[in-house]
Amino acid sequence: MIEETAAHVHTFLRRRRVLLLAALLCVAHAWAQPLPSWNEGPAKQAIVRFVTGVTTAGGPDFIAPEDRIAVFDNDGTLWAEQPMYFQLAFMLDQVKAVAPRHPEWKNDPAFRALAARDHAALAAMGPKPVLKLLAVANSGMSVAVYDKTIRDWLATARHPKFQRSYTELVYVPMQELLAYLRANGFKTFIVSGGSVEFMRPWAEKAYGIPPEQIVGTITQTKLTVVGGKPVLMRSPKIDFVDDGPGKPVGIYRSIGRRPIFAFGNSDGDWQMLQWTAAGEGPRFMGLVHHTDAEREFAYDRQSRIDKLDNAWDEAVAKGWTVVDMRKD
Amino acid sequence: MIEETAAHVHTFLRRRRVLLLAALLCVAHAWAQPLPSWNEGPAKQAIVRFVTGVTTAGGPDFIAPEDRIAVFDNDGTLWAEQPMYFQLAFMLDQVKAVAPRHPEWKNDPAFRALAARDHAALAAMGPKPVLKLLAVANSGMSVAVYDKTIRDWLATARHPKFQRSYTELVYVPMQELLAYLRANGFKTFIVSGGSVEFMRPWAEKAYGIPPEQIVGTITQTKLTVVGGKPVLMRSPKIDFVDDGPGKPVGIYRSIGRRPIFAFGNSDGDWQMLQWTAAGEGPRFMGLVHHTDAEREFAYDRQSRIDKLDNAWDEAVAKGWTVVDMRKD
Repeated sequence: MIEETAAHVHTFLRRRRVLLLAALLCVAHAWAQPLPSWNEGPAKQAIVRFVTGVTTAGGPDFIAPEDRIAVFDNDGTLWAEQPMYFQLAFMLDQVKAVAPRHPEWKNDPAFRALAARDHAALAAMGPKPVLKLLAVANSGMSVAVYDKTIRDWLATARHPKFQRSYTELVYVPMQELLAYLRANGFKTFIVSGGSVEFMRPWAEKAYGIPPEQIVGTITQTKLTVVGGKPVLMRSPKIDFVDDGPGKPVGIYRSIGRRPIFAFGNSDGDWQMLQWTAAGEGPRFMGLVHHTDAEREFAYDRQSRIDKLDNAWDEAVAKGWTVVDMRKD
Repeated sequence: MIEETAAHVHTFLRRRRVLLLAALLCVAHAWAQPLPSWNEGPAKQAIVRFVTGVTTAGGPDFIAPEDRIAVFDNDGTLWAEQPMYFQLAFMLDQVKAVAPRHPEWKNDPAFRALAARDHAALAAMGPKPVLKLLAVANSGMSVAVYDKTIRDWLATARHPKFQRSYTELVYVPMQELLAYLRANGFKTFIVSGGSVEFMRPWAEKAYGIPPEQIVGTITQTKLTVVGGKPVLMRSPKIDFVDDGPGKPVGIYRSIGRRPIFAFGNSDGDWQMLQWTAAGEGPRFMGLVHHTDAEREFAYDRQSRIDKLDNAWDEAVAKGWTVVDMRKD
């Protein structure tokens, strides 16, 4: 009887051990499978092959952790950007919000056309008068007040197509890619044509990228003293445009090392990809190709904003990785 | 006999164990003692008290690790800066080095005065003509070539008073402070009036601060294509001056969070300290006061460069920490 019980216990324990082992193996397997929402295909294979190469100690492609710099465009690469850049939607809403403080706008043709949604009039006058309005509406306050305005807008504004908050429109596969790179010793940066202050309030939560790792377009700010306290005030001027040929400049100014991994989605990222490719040793250049009209948007060479044309040609010619959003 | 030997061995082992234990305790004690080369005094006490407060989970002064941003001036705070800024010594040597490529300088009064070390003539003409020479001598090349020039100079140049390489003239107590802060979850940044490209080649080894955590003055660079490859070329123009009122602007542009800990040594750091102090919650503001003429240099209110005057007054009035280099 005792022997029998002992045998049962023994079997039970062995079974439990087997179950436990199986469970652990499953966990380990899941952990070991990077990029779970990416389909098996050339894009995922190229990423995993590159990361495995640069992290294999003693291997021919090994790169020290401090040099594992990865840069990502934001609009259209990490989150959606249609039907208009989300920051532009915010800045236009700002025009509406501050209009009561600008009675002089009542006679401004650009303001009247915007208010009336008169697309023909807006097209006829070109972008300059609208940009001037945007600059005025988005300056003249402290950086703290502006930061709060951005946060409040993000908390309430909804995307016209998806009826969800803009910060929900980040791409899960790219979140996985960022996490996978960081788990492999990479330091991840955003290098965006958007302005730094618009990305900082939400990028840490959405992407795990802290404010100091966001490179972007810079608005002029000036230190003033208000009530004995130092205050940074926003000017309507742009100090630095981090787009196109500005991206390698922004990377040099703010990061100071050449990336070994870069991801974009349009010709605004072309020079950043070229700058990354021109370094010595192993490099990864990737492009997101928007092909999924059903779940998102489909656009490339003929797009009104952020077209993918020259960078696509070079990607094909040089064997950069092009991610098909629908298939990959 | 055997018992006797065994007893000896036993005693020996016990003694060794005691010795080993004592040695380990010493090591542990040394590890637990932060800032070993700082004298016990109010400055060290203020630092340790602050760091203990913000890192005590559940305590009233606790600050989350991601908000533990510490900023340090470089010249005169982390390394020496007399008899002239080391970067100025380098830039002047650059004038000499590239002079053969500028035959037109033979008739330039500023160049002739520099070559002849004619201090009277230099003083009479003011800084502008010399700054123009410096700008030309330090531009017109790619950022890669300039980086190599800086590295080569740092490897060979010697400080006139100490006859040692400039990168050896970093302050050990400040290296300890940087390491102590990082061990307590702080992210450490340089925020300097010097230019980023002059600090990047050596700051990681000297201070443990990587290139992307260096905020400084920015020279304009432009993307060009040379032989099919993208190249960043240096222009003679300055894009951003990270000094005085520029330091809070530089912090906002590049870091995007307000520091809770700031260290400087002169009025060029005054606004950075005020900006740090103006945040909510616990803050630490520190000033290095150069009082050690024997081991280094002694200077403050009347200094020709980097004087400490207004910031000192505010430090005394507001209870900021002033570190006496000789005593502390």
